[in-house]
Order: sequence, then C-alpha cells, then structure tokens
Amino acid sequence: MPDTVPPSGSYPVSERNKVRRLHERGRYDRESVHAILDAAMLCHIAYVIDGQPYCTPTAFWREDDHLYWHGSSASRMLRSQKGGVAVCLTVTHLDSLVLARCGFNHSVDYRSAMCFGTARIVEDAAEKARALDVMINRFYPDRAATLRQSTTQELKATTVIGMRIEEASGKIRSKGVADEEEDYALPIYAARFPVRQVIGAAEPCPRMPAGVPYPEGLAGFTDGRRLDEIMLEAQHRLYGED
Amino acid sequence: MPDTVPPSGSYPVSERNKVRRLHERGRYDRESVHAILDAAMLCHIAYVIDGQPYCTPTAFWREDDHLYWHGSSASRMLRSQKGGVAVCLTVTHLDSLVLARCGFNHSVDYRSAMCFGTARIVEDAAEKARALDVMINRFYPDRAATLRQSTTQELKATTVIGMRIEEASGKIRSKGVADEEEDYALPIYAARFPVRQVIGAAEPCPRMPAGVPYPEGLAGFTDGRRLDEIMLEAQHRLYGED
Repeated sequence: MPDTVPPSGSYPVSERNKVRRLHERGRYDRESVHAILDAAMLCHIAYVIDGQPYCTPTAFWREDDHLYWHGSSASRMLRSQKGGVAVCLTVTHLDSLVLARCGFNHSVDYRSAMCFGTARIVEDAAEKARALDVMINRFYPDRAATLRQSTTQELKATTVIGMRIEEASGKIRSKGVADEEEDYALPIYAARFPVRQVIGAAEPCPRMPAGVPYPEGLAGFTDGRRLDEIMLEAQHRLYGED
Repeated sequence: MPDTVPPSGSYPVSERNKVRRLHERGRYDRESVHAILDAAMLCHIAYVIDGQPYCTPTAFWREDDHLYWHGSSASRMLRSQKGGVAVCLTVTHLDSLVLARCGFNHSVDYRSAMCFGTARIVEDAAEKARALDVMINRFYPDRAATLRQSTTQELKATTVIGMRIEEASGKIRSKGVADEEEDYALPIYAARFPVRQVIGAAEPCPRMPAGVPYPEGLAGFTDGRRLDEIMLEAQHRLYGED
C-alpha cells in the first residue's frame, strides 16, 4: 500500500517505487512517466520463477494505466498462476554520454521509467484479437486493417499479457557535464556526446508485387529520424495526447 | 547444475538459461554472448527484494567471465546479504523493425544476451579503485589517467558490484521480413527499417580553459557513428579480442 498520498495525476509513492539514489531525478506524475513509456517500443521486464529473477526484453504498449506485451518467457509461468505474477517493467532511453573531469562525475543523460504491477494473460479471445490489432497500429499507424487477417492458429499461438500500473516512477538526467566547482579550471577535456536511436531508409521486401504503394501511415518513418519521436507520434495518433 | 554438457567455449545450458521461445535463435558460445555484451554500455538488471522483482538500467562492463556495474538500487540489499544475491543481467540491441504481411510475422531484428549469476559488492579498496579506472577506460580509451584523481570520499560513495557469469544465453534475429510462402503475392507493403543508436558531435564543456586538446583516445567518437561499434572497439582496445 502507498505510504504517501500522491498529488492528483501522480502514481502513488511507496517503498517499492520511491527513487532512492539521486532522488532529485525522480518523477511520479503520469505525464512524465507516460512520456517516457510512449517514446519506446522495447522494454525490459523483470519477473521471478522459484526465487530466480529473469530480465526479458520485449515490445510493449500502453493504454491508459495498462501496459501490454506478448509472448514472453513469463507466459509459461503465468499459465500456472491464475492470480497473476508480480513484474517490474522498465524503459530506458539513453540521451548522452557525459565525460566529466573526474571519474565520479562521469554519467549519462537518460530517461527511464519503472512500472510495477501484476501481469495476467489476456484470456478473452475478442479482447486478445483487439489488443493485437492495437499493437500493430500503436507502432505503425493505420496498418492493422491493411494486413492479411490473423488465422485462428496464429491467434492461438500468441499470448498477450497485460498489467495495470499499480505504481511507477520516472527518472530523468539531462544536465550534461556537471563537475565540482574547483575542477572546472583543470586542463581536462570534458564534453557531452548526444546519443540518439534512429531508423534508416525503408528496405522494401524484394518479393512484393509491383505497384504496392508506400503506406500513408508510415509517412513519419523517414531516413535518420529518431525512433523515440516516431513512437511518441504513433501513440498520440492512436490515443491522443493522453 | 547444468543438465547439458556444453561444447568447449560455451556457457553451460540449464533450465535457467535455455532459450525456449524460438529456440533456433539461441546462442550459448562465449564468442556470441560476449560480442553482444561488449557492444553495449547499458544493461538492465533484474533482482528480487522480498519476492518483488525490480528491473534497473545501469552501465556495466565485462572482464573475462565477470560483469561489473556500480551503484544500483540493489546495493542496499546487497549490504545485508553477504552471500550475494541472484541477478539476471540483460543486454538488448534493436537492429530493425520488421513489417510483414500479417500481424503474426511482424517482428524486430535484435541481439540480446541474458547472464545469470550472483552479485556481490567489491569490498577490497584496491580492487574497487582499479575497477573504477577500468570502467572509465573501457568506455573511453586511455581516459582514466587524464582525470582528476578520485577522493577518498568519492570512492566511499561509490559501490562497485560484480558477478561471475554462471550461465548465459544470447538470442539473435537478423532475417528481416519472413512471411508465409502463400502471403508473398498479396498486395501488402512489407519492409525492414534498420535501427541504429548513434552518437552526435561532441559538445565540449563551455567552461574548459582554452587550449585543452581533444583526446586521442576519443578519436573513434565521431559524429553519426554507431555506439555499438564504438563500445566494441573500446573493449577490444583494452582487453584484446577476447
């Protein structure tokens, strides 16, 4: 249970999601946390089987306070635990390398979000089929309706997992080089190297029939564009700006 | 204990690290696993406190079969558990978005590695000081010796955590669009969008005294270059090619 009453619009803060290390970087408001989540396609999910932690990368998406992903190694475990299992879903964007004047102040600028909840398999067939369409459209605007329909066998072979975000925290560092005051005068090279994840030009499948047009929904997928911008734009196109 | 005798040069395969889903993508040889680890600066670490899983992003580095990182939220827990704690350290590189002709075959090309071990705090002062120098040099060739020396207080405020890789697995998908044979003739747009993480041009700290030269060790840090290439090169420069 939360041990702090959160301001409206924020996630509750408890011992579980309180940012301890460099706590001044912590954010609990939905707007900050969602902006970090919605700019990502991949997350890492931690879960426990027989006391052993596992950390699995997977594509995920957000709908209000719910997160969804599909077909992870946790599926096997989830099938045997109808009550669901505790997970921590984390997203990290690396924004820069920070080279300071001493080892201690070397750092990176980043945006990360940790979300805590109870993962459950989406069992209802209609809910699952809808979720999979949403997954496609969330990443690739208006694409689901253009695809060959999923077969019963394909739907059966896919597990969709969902969780409500019970608690969450964001953490942001964006200040570049920050050294001790007395170190700035030292003749030591210090700099910030920005980092970005970008897409390249589309490589169309060589087996497409002639005349298949480039989809309008992928107009934002241009050579050299930041993936976090593309993902945030696609999320807003589907759901509006929160 | 491993339930399979691994080929020489490979990590043992057990129930813990066996790749289950799409197992044909699995790799257990050190060369494949290390190549994935060494191309990364950030990892995600899963650990458990009182049954609750946590997933924390952090910078890490590899030395033979050992992984090191510093100052994570797990530190608090580690202090109270001298025997160490079970962790799973995962690295993921996203290499492309794969847009297929049906939802089921949408995918991403990626390289990921999961490493299992027991995390312990590096207590010995000399070992810790050396580890922190190595950490700097592993990311930024020859940089540690150019920095203002760490103070006793800074060293005390830093926790270095290490683990031996007991088991590991890599997973690689790199085939781009792969559809059902009967779907290729459909008039549906299908393509691969390459994804890469790159650095931008150095943004030198404006408070540097005049005349501080750009370090030779950062010659590889050029505008637009892939971070995974830079990291792999820095690792090889420090340790040789495994």
